[in-house]
Amino acid sequence: MREREREMASLNDVSTKGKVINCNAAVVWGPGKPFVIEEIQVEPPQNMEVRVKILYTSICHTDLNAWKGENESQQAFPRVLGHEAAGIIESVGEGVLDMKEGDHVVPIFNGECGDCVYCTSEKTNLCEKFRVNPMKSVMFNDGKTRFSTLDRKPIYHFLNTSTFSEYTVLDSGCVVKIDSKASLKKMSLLSCCISTGLGAVWNTANVQGGSTLAIFGLGAVGLAVAEGARSRGASRIIGVDINPEKFIKGRAMGITDFINPKDLEIYVHEKIWEMTEGGVDYSFECAGNLDVLREAFLSTHDGWGLTVILGIHPSPRMLPLHPMELFDGRRLTGTVFGDFKGKSQLPNLALQCMNGASISRLVNLDEFITHELPFSKINEAFKLLTNGESLRCLLHL
Amino acid sequence: MREREREMASLNDVSTKGKVINCNAAVVWGPGKPFVIEEIQVEPPQNMEVRVKILYTSICHTDLNAWKGENESQQAFPRVLGHEAAGIIESVGEGVLDMKEGDHVVPIFNGECGDCVYCTSEKTNLCEKFRVNPMKSVMFNDGKTRFSTLDRKPIYHFLNTSTFSEYTVLDSGCVVKIDSKASLKKMSLLSCCISTGLGAVWNTANVQGGSTLAIFGLGAVGLAVAEGARSRGASRIIGVDINPEKFIKGRAMGITDFINPKDLEIYVHEKIWEMTEGGVDYSFECAGNLDVLREAFLSTHDGWGLTVILGIHPSPRMLPLHPMELFDGRRLTGTVFGDFKGKSQLPNLALQCMNGASISRLVNLDEFITHELPFSKINEAFKLLTNGESLRCLLHL
Repeated sequence: MREREREMASLNDVSTKGKVINCNAAVVWGPGKPFVIEEIQVEPPQNMEVRVKILYTSICHTDLNAWKGENESQQAFPRVLGHEAAGIIESVGEGVLDMKEGDHVVPIFNGECGDCVYCTSEKTNLCEKFRVNPMKSVMFNDGKTRFSTLDRKPIYHFLNTSTFSEYTVLDSGCVVKIDSKASLKKMSLLSCCISTGLGAVWNTANVQGGSTLAIFGLGAVGLAVAEGARSRGASRIIGVDINPEKFIKGRAMGITDFINPKDLEIYVHEKIWEMTEGGVDYSFECAGNLDVLREAFLSTHDGWGLTVILGIHPSPRMLPLHPMELFDGRRLTGTVFGDFKGKSQLPNLALQCMNGASISRLVNLDEFITHELPFSKINEAFKLLTNGESLRCLLHL
Repeated sequence: MREREREMASLNDVSTKGKVINCNAAVVWGPGKPFVIEEIQVEPPQNMEVRVKILYTSICHTDLNAWKGENESQQAFPRVLGHEAAGIIESVGEGVLDMKEGDHVVPIFNGECGDCVYCTSEKTNLCEKFRVNPMKSVMFNDGKTRFSTLDRKPIYHFLNTSTFSEYTVLDSGCVVKIDSKASLKKMSLLSCCISTGLGAVWNTANVQGGSTLAIFGLGAVGLAVAEGARSRGASRIIGVDINPEKFIKGRAMGITDFINPKDLEIYVHEKIWEMTEGGVDYSFECAGNLDVLREAFLSTHDGWGLTVILGIHPSPRMLPLHPMELFDGRRLTGTVFGDFKGKSQLPNLALQCMNGASISRLVNLDEFITHELPFSKINEAFKLLTNGESLRCLLHL
């Protein structure tokens, strides 16, 4: 069955609205333990919640970190991980007015309630209720889970999303309705890596044409940064990675120069100073490594350089920067979900990616999906990511 | 003799142009050693340099740090410290076209050559030649000093300025000509503390009316921040200092609330969150202490808070912030000389302070000069600053 037909047909079953659904999910029972595909129970959505039939999901390094359980306070097992996905609304809970059964949606881990002091401010995309919180493992409404084992033991949620399940329940503030004609396969990438990378360039750094930049870490997020920079007309896009295989893919994404730190006898920032007469205008840290972060910071031009941190840093180490180094005019900022307000801005981004508008020509979503596997092979997909072989391995549910 | 007459009469001597001048200076012979007022020799200005007769100078914590010699790489003795001052041009070197004998001037430690990649950029007030460099102890032209002992041993320069001398030689890029009708006494404050504090608010943070802010450390720079914030219509200006005597002065400068950390059983940032529904919009760190810096950072509202670092941090400790804390939308930036481009912007700031324009009504320069002493009592003035008794003690040369 072709992609479109499969999507259209996916809800042509007997209505499950209001009922507990038994379905398959990939459950993790402890830190670092393999995913077990097993039958679980998914309760109906409560007030301001929706239940989504997930059609496609992929794995991101944030899932890896939670899976490893490196941060003890984040441990909550058994748990359904996953946050990058796309699917179709199966049913909506009381009070949900902006979505209905059959709508095509992508979940967002950084939600938007629309009413809080953050959502009503133009300065931030945080949300009081649904901001990123890896410690959160239950629903906002009642502090309980909607997942359980067949013998009714709770299974915990993850990052407002939990997409490694045929059905999942989310707060409606964490779900974005997109045009039904969009390819859900591709749109699943808007859930995390593409939005994060493009937004870091367009919203957080607001990179201007003719600028120079360096990207540290050429995974899916780093390459989305490259696409975003190319679409803004950056004159030079330097990619830094210790895996030379990333360079082949990177070239197609607009990267103009490559640096493999293993090939250098000097610091990466020194090499970049040489290449750019004193440093790049912007650098993007997508590696989640503090030594890399320091190199990214120093690689920008003093006076105006801006480093955007996208990588997740599980190490307890503090920033390896001295306060006086901030007096050289280099700045440093974090970005969450590329500073997109998800519910407000993603429907338009999806249209742009879909309609052949300027962005679709520039952002090649297909290039990011390097592998596709059935959901049952999720452990294999994890290995592909860990080994740096895949950008995104799309799992079909 | 009254201030104005003294200023006008100061150069009515036999011309000293082109000659070595013997005059008194406060020389420091080793880290932490007392200042010795002694006769030194000051050479004529070379190409693009000027020689200035200093009439007023005051002491700032940056002088204190260099005097203590805490950073070994900054040690260069014997040395003439001092960077906050005002005076009159005695003579100009070859090529200096924008100043002439008799002009009223203030030295700036963060110079502006006007030609380099930084000076021609709107994004920074750094300068390739004359940026702040506490390690620099000789002139740009020839790497030599213009000061010497009577037996011709070199005496080192400090921070592009060295104002603890009756005459000093500076690069013309580090000297700003101001209107001759301005009070040099007051204008000396534009050399450092006032420009740094006002500029941090107006240029670096660009504080908007109705904003809330917290100032950590209520010395002259911190109080200049308060004046700047009041002039911008900030709705709430919280002052934080462990010296309760600062609070009396602070009230006159526009501070609305005070916190003495010694009176609290909770963290300062927690108190500020209580007072402001989640944090201030801006915080200014003027204490040069890393634990204070962390409190300043956390005291801002997540999502949009901006912390501006003004304090000099001599400790080798790194930033006590975890990279993930930057994902809460709080930002952090350093500021040098309030992001003013000195030669371009200070003449106008001087006019504003002088002419009764909007700013003069708001920035009360007199309040900052708490003590006045003859130059010979420079050691006494140092004690006043170290003990937190003075904001600025003006030394008359």
